[in-house]
Amino acid sequence: MTDPISGFSRLSKEEKIEWLNRTYLQQSEEASRILRQYWNPDAKLQRLHEEFTENTLSNFYLPFGIAPNFLINGQRYAIPMVTEESSVVAAASKAAKFWGTRGGFQAEVINTRKVGQVHFSYKGDPAKLQSFFQRTKPRLIASVADITRNMEKRGGGVLDIELRDKNHELEHYYQLHGTFDTRDSMGANFINSCLERFAKTFKEEALKFADFNKEERDLEIIMSILSNYVPQCLVRVEVSCPVEDMASSEMSGEEFSRKFLRAIEIAKVEPYRAVTHNKGAMNGIDAVVIATGNDFRAVEAGIHAYAAKDGTYTSLTHAEVEKGVFRFWMEIPLALGTVGGLTRLHPLSRVALDILQKPSAEQLMKIVAVTGLAQNFAAVSSLITTGIQKGHMKMHLLNILNQLEASIAEKEQLVDFFRDKTLTYSAVGAELEKIRKA
Amino acid sequence: MTDPISGFSRLSKEEKIEWLNRTYLQQSEEASRILRQYWNPDAKLQRLHEEFTENTLSNFYLPFGIAPNFLINGQRYAIPMVTEESSVVAAASKAAKFWGTRGGFQAEVINTRKVGQVHFSYKGDPAKLQSFFQRTKPRLIASVADITRNMEKRGGGVLDIELRDKNHELEHYYQLHGTFDTRDSMGANFINSCLERFAKTFKEEALKFADFNKEERDLEIIMSILSNYVPQCLVRVEVSCPVEDMASSEMSGEEFSRKFLRAIEIAKVEPYRAVTHNKGAMNGIDAVVIATGNDFRAVEAGIHAYAAKDGTYTSLTHAEVEKGVFRFWMEIPLALGTVGGLTRLHPLSRVALDILQKPSAEQLMKIVAVTGLAQNFAAVSSLITTGIQKGHMKMHLLNILNQLEASIAEKEQLVDFFRDKTLTYSAVGAELEKIRKA
Repeated sequence: MTDPISGFSRLSKEEKIEWLNRTYLQQSEEASRILRQYWNPDAKLQRLHEEFTENTLSNFYLPFGIAPNFLINGQRYAIPMVTEESSVVAAASKAAKFWGTRGGFQAEVINTRKVGQVHFSYKGDPAKLQSFFQRTKPRLIASVADITRNMEKRGGGVLDIELRDKNHELEHYYQLHGTFDTRDSMGANFINSCLERFAKTFKEEALKFADFNKEERDLEIIMSILSNYVPQCLVRVEVSCPVEDMASSEMSGEEFSRKFLRAIEIAKVEPYRAVTHNKGAMNGIDAVVIATGNDFRAVEAGIHAYAAKDGTYTSLTHAEVEKGVFRFWMEIPLALGTVGGLTRLHPLSRVALDILQKPSAEQLMKIVAVTGLAQNFAAVSSLITTGIQKGHMKMHLLNILNQLEASIAEKEQLVDFFRDKTLTYSAVGAELEKIRKA
Repeated sequence: MTDPISGFSRLSKEEKIEWLNRTYLQQSEEASRILRQYWNPDAKLQRLHEEFTENTLSNFYLPFGIAPNFLINGQRYAIPMVTEESSVVAAASKAAKFWGTRGGFQAEVINTRKVGQVHFSYKGDPAKLQSFFQRTKPRLIASVADITRNMEKRGGGVLDIELRDKNHELEHYYQLHGTFDTRDSMGANFINSCLERFAKTFKEEALKFADFNKEERDLEIIMSILSNYVPQCLVRVEVSCPVEDMASSEMSGEEFSRKFLRAIEIAKVEPYRAVTHNKGAMNGIDAVVIATGNDFRAVEAGIHAYAAKDGTYTSLTHAEVEKGVFRFWMEIPLALGTVGGLTRLHPLSRVALDILQKPSAEQLMKIVAVTGLAQNFAAVSSLITTGIQKGHMKMHLLNILNQLEASIAEKEQLVDFFRDKTLTYSAVGAELEKIRKA
């Protein structure tokens, strides 16, 4: 067994690679060469990227692409997307173009409240805790003045703190449930800083509260942390048009609408489908979240939990036909920032935000949600017409051909050959061999 | 309003940037310069990355880092992680080191079945459909022989197809529910290709089935698609040690274990906490998923739906103390590949897999899940001891200082200054001003 290493984080990047090479890569120079070939020639820029996190050896490339022609509330956008998955940017662009000639996307932010909690245990009289909380609440708010000052200047801050009794779910469990407005920042650092201060103040005040007996005074702070579940930080996006305008070369508007509604109904009742259905929307959502320097794990967790909020995991998107009008919409929670974090620190995120016309967090919520709705529309449309594989397979074929180091001429010939055939890795390999031997 | 653009995808990369510049960036040369500075000097490598997806303008850098010292089933690993979030790699390394001296991580793959479905509508006699299905099933299997040949050589293939009657959930709704073993590939293309063929064969055979009346023959395929919900593709990971070995400078092993268990209980009963709790695990999981060229949206969707499978969104991790032993574990669904997709196509994913000793998909499931458990352990440990901000803030401070273009000397001075103070962007700005004026 390999020995553990001490002090790895203090090694230089070169030393780290050397250690990896020795320990796991049989001294192959190939891996070192590959890690190095991704370094930026500009040493200062390279260092900036290395400092984003720890033990950085290189830069992992994800394609930064553009889906143009998104019409959102009457404004035309080109949306930057970062994704490694083929067909995603093409599908978004296609949906954008389709809806661009049918009135575009309507988007509306419903609310923007974020949540953070101080979780604590208290063994004592609930009424005394309540009166202690009421008395202490102004002090809690006052104790974070240095943290909230700037946020308040921007119109945000602490909105409220409630005492929540969770005894019925877990014995002696209570919360300080805080709600926050963090304006154009995602707010994780702000909220966590406030909460840790609340916890400290709350504990200090409890020790001094005359009505508490010893056990009550001993209330125990378990942890203080923001929530990535933000059902009160919601955005709603929608498209609609007359049913007859949904016609394509494959089917009439009526047939398309009927089949589309059926696909949505299926995603509502069948979790196996709902998971993949929503994953389609996330393909679009995450791509913009990453491009703009936001945290996609936070967004994923919040949205999927929202999809399960009524007891069964279900579709995030909804569709109906009423009075001859096809309507397709989605409502999702999204906590995003356009300042703070990596948003302005990652040079490409800055470019992405510039391309989006320097949006506020609320505007970005709309843009991200629209991209998700577009992606879901594109996926369901493919599924109910030509199937998902036709579009995927062209890209998949190119990926296989790249792996087999096919030339441009070989690629053209084989894309043509496989147009109407089932694609497997071995079939592509065999055809390529044939061409090369010919 | 900006005019829509036609034929954007056919423009060259330079022309796309030029159009963006003209349309959205007021001809600023800055954005073009930034997009270009991320191109790889090696034109062939750059083209490879551009062809992963569509309309690619540049490469978005995410830090590729290493968390060493993971002991998994008696083998020592250094785990490649791709994440933009500060503290994640450091936290994983810390947890790895901690458990490395306490027996390491135990990991076990429980099963590896994946699911795909043909969703269809049928208005007719369910018994006739059942007998049609039984008769047709061998033909369905036979019809995919060209697709499954290679997968079968590797020991995988179609495991079963069931007819599922979903009428009680949605009128006239039925499924062909397929289960698959896709060995070391994630299997999306394989499963989708099989399903689309099943659907075609099923429909063709229905048209010829003598017992069907006209309406029954008209069964309608709605869509054919794999599921990212994979509760039968499960991995289980665990750590354990005597309670007294959980002691740290902050608290005794008993106190730590008690508080840790309480934090897990809270995450079990409170969805606001569970979402963020699980997000912590996903910080680790996604980082390895991305580094190895896998699809994190698929993994996210499957895992969060699994967290909600019993009707309430809840903690993915579990903890107990029994007979003086602290035990912490997690069971999650994970559909991953170590062949196919980007796994071998992205040169850095290839390096990541080499560093992980060329794992099979099952081995990779274990490694990814262990990283998730480690990350969750680290996050909960911080929360119940020093709080999350202490660790975060150092990195956050460095990010702010980079944004303010602080020199190395200034950074050192301010890291020292803010060690025991509350960090806000404006406070850092003010202190930096002071230093610069001094």
